[in-house]
Amino acid sequence: MRVWYRCSRCGYTVEASSWLWRCPRCGNPLDLVIDGLKLTLSERRGLWRFSSVIPAKPLISLGEGFTPLVNADFLGRNVYLKLEYLNPTGSFKDRGSAVAVSRALELGVKAVVEDSSGNAGISVAAYAAAAGVKARIYVPKDAPEGKKNLIRSLGAELIEVQSRDEASRMAIESVGPGEAYIGHAWNPWFLQGTKTLAYELLDQLGHVPDAVVLPVSAGTLLLGLWIGFNELLNLGLINRVPRLYAVQAQGFASLYERMHGNYIREPTKLADALRVYNPPRIEQMVNAIRESNGDALVITDDELLQSWKSLLRRGFIIEPSSAIALSGYMKLLSNNHIDKDEETVIVLTGSGLKYIDIMSKI
Amino acid sequence: MRVWYRCSRCGYTVEASSWLWRCPRCGNPLDLVIDGLKLTLSERRGLWRFSSVIPAKPLISLGEGFTPLVNADFLGRNVYLKLEYLNPTGSFKDRGSAVAVSRALELGVKAVVEDSSGNAGISVAAYAAAAGVKARIYVPKDAPEGKKNLIRSLGAELIEVQSRDEASRMAIESVGPGEAYIGHAWNPWFLQGTKTLAYELLDQLGHVPDAVVLPVSAGTLLLGLWIGFNELLNLGLINRVPRLYAVQAQGFASLYERMHGNYIREPTKLADALRVYNPPRIEQMVNAIRESNGDALVITDDELLQSWKSLLRRGFIIEPSSAIALSGYMKLLSNNHIDKDEETVIVLTGSGLKYIDIMSKI
Repeated sequence: MRVWYRCSRCGYTVEASSWLWRCPRCGNPLDLVIDGLKLTLSERRGLWRFSSVIPAKPLISLGEGFTPLVNADFLGRNVYLKLEYLNPTGSFKDRGSAVAVSRALELGVKAVVEDSSGNAGISVAAYAAAAGVKARIYVPKDAPEGKKNLIRSLGAELIEVQSRDEASRMAIESVGPGEAYIGHAWNPWFLQGTKTLAYELLDQLGHVPDAVVLPVSAGTLLLGLWIGFNELLNLGLINRVPRLYAVQAQGFASLYERMHGNYIREPTKLADALRVYNPPRIEQMVNAIRESNGDALVITDDELLQSWKSLLRRGFIIEPSSAIALSGYMKLLSNNHIDKDEETVIVLTGSGLKYIDIMSKI
Repeated sequence: MRVWYRCSRCGYTVEASSWLWRCPRCGNPLDLVIDGLKLTLSERRGLWRFSSVIPAKPLISLGEGFTPLVNADFLGRNVYLKLEYLNPTGSFKDRGSAVAVSRALELGVKAVVEDSSGNAGISVAAYAAAAGVKARIYVPKDAPEGKKNLIRSLGAELIEVQSRDEASRMAIESVGPGEAYIGHAWNPWFLQGTKTLAYELLDQLGHVPDAVVLPVSAGTLLLGLWIGFNELLNLGLINRVPRLYAVQAQGFASLYERMHGNYIREPTKLADALRVYNPPRIEQMVNAIRESNGDALVITDDELLQSWKSLLRRGFIIEPSSAIALSGYMKLLSNNHIDKDEETVIVLTGSGLKYIDIMSKI
């Protein structure tokens, strides 16, 4: 397998033998291009079952991937729920971290740097701990206290700053020699981890669903699915890509706004994991939605709260941000964007166990 | 498959066609005896993969079982960590709840009743929610606030009482017509769920390990393993039962004390999930330890804290009670009860995500 970085904007191409997270020529996000992709399933049960299509050595595992896919009825319609919140640190981010941190370790990195509103920081901190490398995590000070506690407990250095944007800027500026900026919103290795969700859905179902509905902020899961499904298409293992429906939170609807115009509402108070203003890969996100014949939606906090309660009352212990996908599905049903007979997967991305201190309020 | 209740003490036997949780003749715990046990693996990936040996219809699933088994080095020795904390509600209890609540639903029960210091209550509440039956959970008021919040959020009725013992007594007294007392420490159906861990270890490893080290309070996991390994032995699928090592917390060392005499120390402050004074199945627990050539150990809070930190610093987000198993393993190594070349599985039973509000203190 030979792997290249290719700039998503200017086309600059270079062999992926060192750590890059954006184009050295124009500063835009990089993609990874893999020569000679071939799928051979390994006997392992987690994400590394798909090792043959992941361009990194399987150096670290905390048990990520192979999350349950369960059936549930909503409004009389049967859907699949993909329980990504049962990943090792409680979010789908572990797919990206397992691959990105493994690759960083392979390249001899001594410390990783990340900015995050919580889940990505926890995930990178845990995988850095497993890898035996240092982690420095920049978070906005209004991130949930529990998430910040956990990042520290995992042995990472936690740096609190004023805002999500400042976290990003300061993380990038701080990166020194021997250190790697993970930056999940930028990082092309991270997407090589999240793409395994597409492979796993095919593995679990035996085919691909008609539609996938998922929460979207920086787009790492959306783009992972897009990459994965397209690889499967090119490998001749599927004959169509499922429609991808991106569900966003009020106040952080950049993708929706790019596609449908302004959506004025105050920033979400509930969906803290979806607070991203300027996703660097927005062009690619728009493309994935359009090319898959999907759509972008925005959900209000009132709608989200109903879905969160509804999922908890069915035994699914998810974080509020994840519930937004169910709200999105309900809206897509009522707008006839998804037909009642179509097979749909709703991705539940993050664990509610990180929120039990605030659950008394609902 | 024909299934019988048999009293562990007086031998009273009756077909298991209604809900019983203790012997109607002498009040002691009941076992389930299965006629014609035969193992056929199903295509499903979770606990119900072992449906053929579970005497209950697979009515409910939240994605329990099939938890990761990962390798890690401690003191230069390689062990397997079985990540039971990645079960749907964050503890191994989900194996028991999935089976017991499925069976209760099959028998037409309208509400389930449980007493718990936290994890079992969360688990039963979630499975009752999934089953669409009511749940009433009695907990001691000193149980962690977050765990109590979560039980309420899952739609259960939470009743706080003075102590763990009072929770038990009041739960039992409260059970009315059409209601089933789950009582995981008593319930024989619950053990039919936890026994799947033995089947799963064989399935994942291809053989059984030399030793299994696990936290023990009411003994539901210990006895599940004992039942499961013995069934596998009787089925001719393995030729020995692994040595079972039960690790207990200071102040709640009933099993250790039965085997080795008094152990005087103040009750644990850290291992809240292990606070059980009088496990009803203590005789069976002693038998499982002795017959398997294992042992019981007690770990102090100081030792436990070290192991908890050590596991967190390796990326394993577990609750303090679970870390006790690693402390136990260290002690067994240093006492030469486990040889450095022996294959050992350490069971990590509960999720640390339920504790992120207190993590700032460590």
